[in-house]
Amino acid sequence: MLEKVAKYLPILNWIKAYNSETLASDLVASVIVTIMLIPQSLAYALLAGLPPQIGLYASILPLVVYALFGTSRSLAVGPVAILSLMTAAAAGKIAATGTVEYIEAAVILAFLSGLILLILGMLRMGFLANFLSHPVVSGFITASGILIAASQLKHILGIRTEGHTLIEIIVSLGEKIDQVNVPTFAIGISSLLLLFFIRSHLKSLLVALGLPDKVAVIISRAGPVFAVVASIFAVSAFSLNDVGVSILGDIPRDLPEIGLPAFDQDIWLQLVGSAGLISLIGFVESVSVGQTLAAKRRQRIDPNQELIGLGVANLAAGISAGYPVTGGLARSAVNFDAGAETPAAGAFTAIGIAVATIFLTPFLYFLPQAVLAATIIVAVLSLVDLHAIKNVWAYSKHDFTAMIATIIVTLVFGVELGITAGVMLSLVLHLYNTSRPHFAIVGRVPGTQHFRNIHRHQVITSDRVSTIRVDESLYFANARFLEETIYNLVAEMSAIEHLVLMCPAVNHIDASALESLEHINHVLRDAGISLHLSEVKGPVMDKLEGTSFLKGLTGKIYLHQYEAIGDLDRNCIDRPLESARMEPSPFHHSC
Amino acid sequence: MLEKVAKYLPILNWIKAYNSETLASDLVASVIVTIMLIPQSLAYALLAGLPPQIGLYASILPLVVYALFGTSRSLAVGPVAILSLMTAAAAGKIAATGTVEYIEAAVILAFLSGLILLILGMLRMGFLANFLSHPVVSGFITASGILIAASQLKHILGIRTEGHTLIEIIVSLGEKIDQVNVPTFAIGISSLLLLFFIRSHLKSLLVALGLPDKVAVIISRAGPVFAVVASIFAVSAFSLNDVGVSILGDIPRDLPEIGLPAFDQDIWLQLVGSAGLISLIGFVESVSVGQTLAAKRRQRIDPNQELIGLGVANLAAGISAGYPVTGGLARSAVNFDAGAETPAAGAFTAIGIAVATIFLTPFLYFLPQAVLAATIIVAVLSLVDLHAIKNVWAYSKHDFTAMIATIIVTLVFGVELGITAGVMLSLVLHLYNTSRPHFAIVGRVPGTQHFRNIHRHQVITSDRVSTIRVDESLYFANARFLEETIYNLVAEMSAIEHLVLMCPAVNHIDASALESLEHINHVLRDAGISLHLSEVKGPVMDKLEGTSFLKGLTGKIYLHQYEAIGDLDRNCIDRPLESARMEPSPFHHSC
Repeated sequence: MLEKVAKYLPILNWIKAYNSETLASDLVASVIVTIMLIPQSLAYALLAGLPPQIGLYASILPLVVYALFGTSRSLAVGPVAILSLMTAAAAGKIAATGTVEYIEAAVILAFLSGLILLILGMLRMGFLANFLSHPVVSGFITASGILIAASQLKHILGIRTEGHTLIEIIVSLGEKIDQVNVPTFAIGISSLLLLFFIRSHLKSLLVALGLPDKVAVIISRAGPVFAVVASIFAVSAFSLNDVGVSILGDIPRDLPEIGLPAFDQDIWLQLVGSAGLISLIGFVESVSVGQTLAAKRRQRIDPNQELIGLGVANLAAGISAGYPVTGGLARSAVNFDAGAETPAAGAFTAIGIAVATIFLTPFLYFLPQAVLAATIIVAVLSLVDLHAIKNVWAYSKHDFTAMIATIIVTLVFGVELGITAGVMLSLVLHLYNTSRPHFAIVGRVPGTQHFRNIHRHQVITSDRVSTIRVDESLYFANARFLEETIYNLVAEMSAIEHLVLMCPAVNHIDASALESLEHINHVLRDAGISLHLSEVKGPVMDKLEGTSFLKGLTGKIYLHQYEAIGDLDRNCIDRPLESARMEPSPFHHSC
Repeated sequence: MLEKVAKYLPILNWIKAYNSETLASDLVASVIVTIMLIPQSLAYALLAGLPPQIGLYASILPLVVYALFGTSRSLAVGPVAILSLMTAAAAGKIAATGTVEYIEAAVILAFLSGLILLILGMLRMGFLANFLSHPVVSGFITASGILIAASQLKHILGIRTEGHTLIEIIVSLGEKIDQVNVPTFAIGISSLLLLFFIRSHLKSLLVALGLPDKVAVIISRAGPVFAVVASIFAVSAFSLNDVGVSILGDIPRDLPEIGLPAFDQDIWLQLVGSAGLISLIGFVESVSVGQTLAAKRRQRIDPNQELIGLGVANLAAGISAGYPVTGGLARSAVNFDAGAETPAAGAFTAIGIAVATIFLTPFLYFLPQAVLAATIIVAVLSLVDLHAIKNVWAYSKHDFTAMIATIIVTLVFGVELGITAGVMLSLVLHLYNTSRPHFAIVGRVPGTQHFRNIHRHQVITSDRVSTIRVDESLYFANARFLEETIYNLVAEMSAIEHLVLMCPAVNHIDASALESLEHINHVLRDAGISLHLSEVKGPVMDKLEGTSFLKGLTGKIYLHQYEAIGDLDRNCIDRPLESARMEPSPFHHSC
């Protein structure tokens, strides 16, 4: 009984071994993550077009809940850049940024996304994430990074622009470029420079000064905090908010109220598709991060339980005025490096954010939005991975096509169409690939019992017996192609009496392909050719048993190809040197 | 030059050999098909909810045009039952049956469908039809047959009902069952009985009377003509139209006017999806019939040129007030049996229908709609193939799921959703299948160089060297599954030093799977296990060359598995009896 509960409540697995040492590690990590998360949650709320407190709210209850249900020991759940961008795109379809309806839509997105993740987790459908190919995810993240960076330029320049796609953003920037606010721009550009310096040089500087490597990493990752503190002092000291610098202003000091989001069937139905995409992307991001970190400590995470963990975390966001959350890459890495040992670190972080919400927000009054925008830009530009694009191009043109389509559609038409197009295209290309399988006429490699392509290897063949190896599972998309190929190949073989279909690469034969095989058998029979199969796999053979195809088959089924050729054309194997030696035999002949 | 033109104008290939003998054969066949097509085209127009002359118009110009562009020598193009049903479903979304807008929509459907087929043909995308699996097509045809038969019951009963789905039709029939017109019902039921008798017994009766088999077949196929003639006499003799029997009435004796259908962007956009489905189904039906008949005479058809042929035929229907056409199964079989040798037979049939439109229509004035409905019911019930359902159930539960879903969705939600659901589901099931591939730990079959599953065969294995055969192409949908499976399998092998991944069934490795392989290599390296590959196919190896995976691979690539095991654990092969004999060797051992 307890085991069954523990399966759904992973906290029961680690709480028993919890002691003062683990507590100390978790507390240290949580303090560091809290310091990092405060500016992050404000910045990502800004990116999502939401009031800053929504970002804080999304960093309290969801973290506590994930600590109960999640399996990753180091994942730091909370708002992330890409989900913030997707939330903006989805909520923007419902209402204008800044309206009550817009905020409500973001909260509903979290709730719906939580429901979807939870249901998928209960149904153990974590495998769905596998349908996002690496190049598509990588292309989507790169394009989102560019899109997010572009969308933040308005805050750096101190102008108001609109748009969810790169073209809209660029056009809008171009129209308003004459309205640049100079003090804002000065703050923005100097924050950008500072943050880029911190990211690229601070760590080596600190190490050179004698700090341990790990501490240096954590301090440089917490870089945005310096920019935040410095800019607050600068703005308040020189009253820069009076010369047009947008500041964060008053943030309500209350903790979020708990309650279900307002139900309106039309709006929920409009948002459910977007919530599905947000769930999928959030899950893939979280699982990738979680698996990478878990592998480093030889731990494992359970993708289906992660669905449940992220599901309840998002439900928690949905009932506490937050917006969609997931495990963040940079933040989780800091959590891991800072020594977090259990999900309790996340719960402690939540307490930290709650305390900050009540006591720290007045000090953030003068924080310029330009600084938050700068932290976002620096963070997301590290997501842009041009190297991956080059690698995929070199390896596979099909994968590259899916990747570049994802990037272009995301940039030009927005995030939702981008990821949808990428997934669809990668599936279609895969199906197209398998619908035109590779076929090889094979012969025996001399001195072995092994058969390879006659065009690639020097092999022994027979005129009376031809062997065609089909390099794909046989299913509806290639059944007709199979027929055509075999008829065409056989038409060129005048002396053929036996055709052997060699099936080591045939992993399934579906009903359509079975019909085609039956048809091939009849056509070959009429032409005086026997059809044989060799190296049919166990699971495939099990299904073929008892079918009318097998009953009407003119030839035999051979366990292996060497047996087939020995039976059908003894001349091809009866040689004195046919031992199991690996050296090529001295005679290469056609028998 | 001429060859290139001939590729797109197949008539140039057969017109040279045309002589008085071919002409005679074609003329005979065309007369028989004309006699069969007159009631058919009227009945199918009725089924599509169109005036009878639209059916005749669809049987004139399209046939002439197909004769120029089609590659099938015996295909009889014209209105068919399933496309008529689909036309009714699509046009019914635009306007009420019987209105001018409804008729216009049917004409636009033909035009759009022609455009789509033509473009697909130009782009040589005939392979698209392969994505309709046999069970889905078979299920769709069965469900359509039931739907069509049900929709015609109102004409047999002499009542007016509505609805495009089985439930709507049944409910509507139930509501109006008290309004049955007895004379109509008498005509309907007696036509049904007569036609069933003709279909099932006339042929053997005629053969018993001494007629040649072929003639008997053709006469019995032309059965509806007897019912038509007899009922016309009965209705006109007893003035049954005055007691509520619906008759065909006046049919315009003009030939269709030629002109583009009215253009209205909204309506065309609303119809383009339906036109796509009509194109796909029409193409699949036509190609199946065409290929079957061509194979009987050892001829071949070119699917891409067929797309062009059917495309121009439908364009012709669209500019001559017709509606979507394709090659019909029963009619083409009659054409073939009657001896049609070239597509010219179709052109002669067109002349026959044109002559009938001008001179014969007055005689059809008294033709009762109930008789036409009876011919439809008898024709479509032969499409219902319950045997196929049973066969698919026995062979594959996945295929059966796709088939039964197609049937149920078609019956309950209509033809368009039905075929869409079937195609989607069969693709999803196929992807799901390949996302959880079969893995086998293999050992050597004693006395051979062949390796098979340790759980299915008595084989020789090594403790130090394990070989896992992965039975699927490696791509994004199973990349993560591959990693998990290998980690789990390796975790159970304590003495393992070498892992060989045997790849005879791996036909592609995409970028996602390559990343996973690289990851597996690193994880195994850290665990002190070398990773080797064996029997990698040529095309896969070509792509792997130069990748960082191959550079970092801890083990080797072996051409065949026997070589791998010989290199990694010599004990497993060095036995005196290792000859190439097929007999199992006397010792089965684990080395």
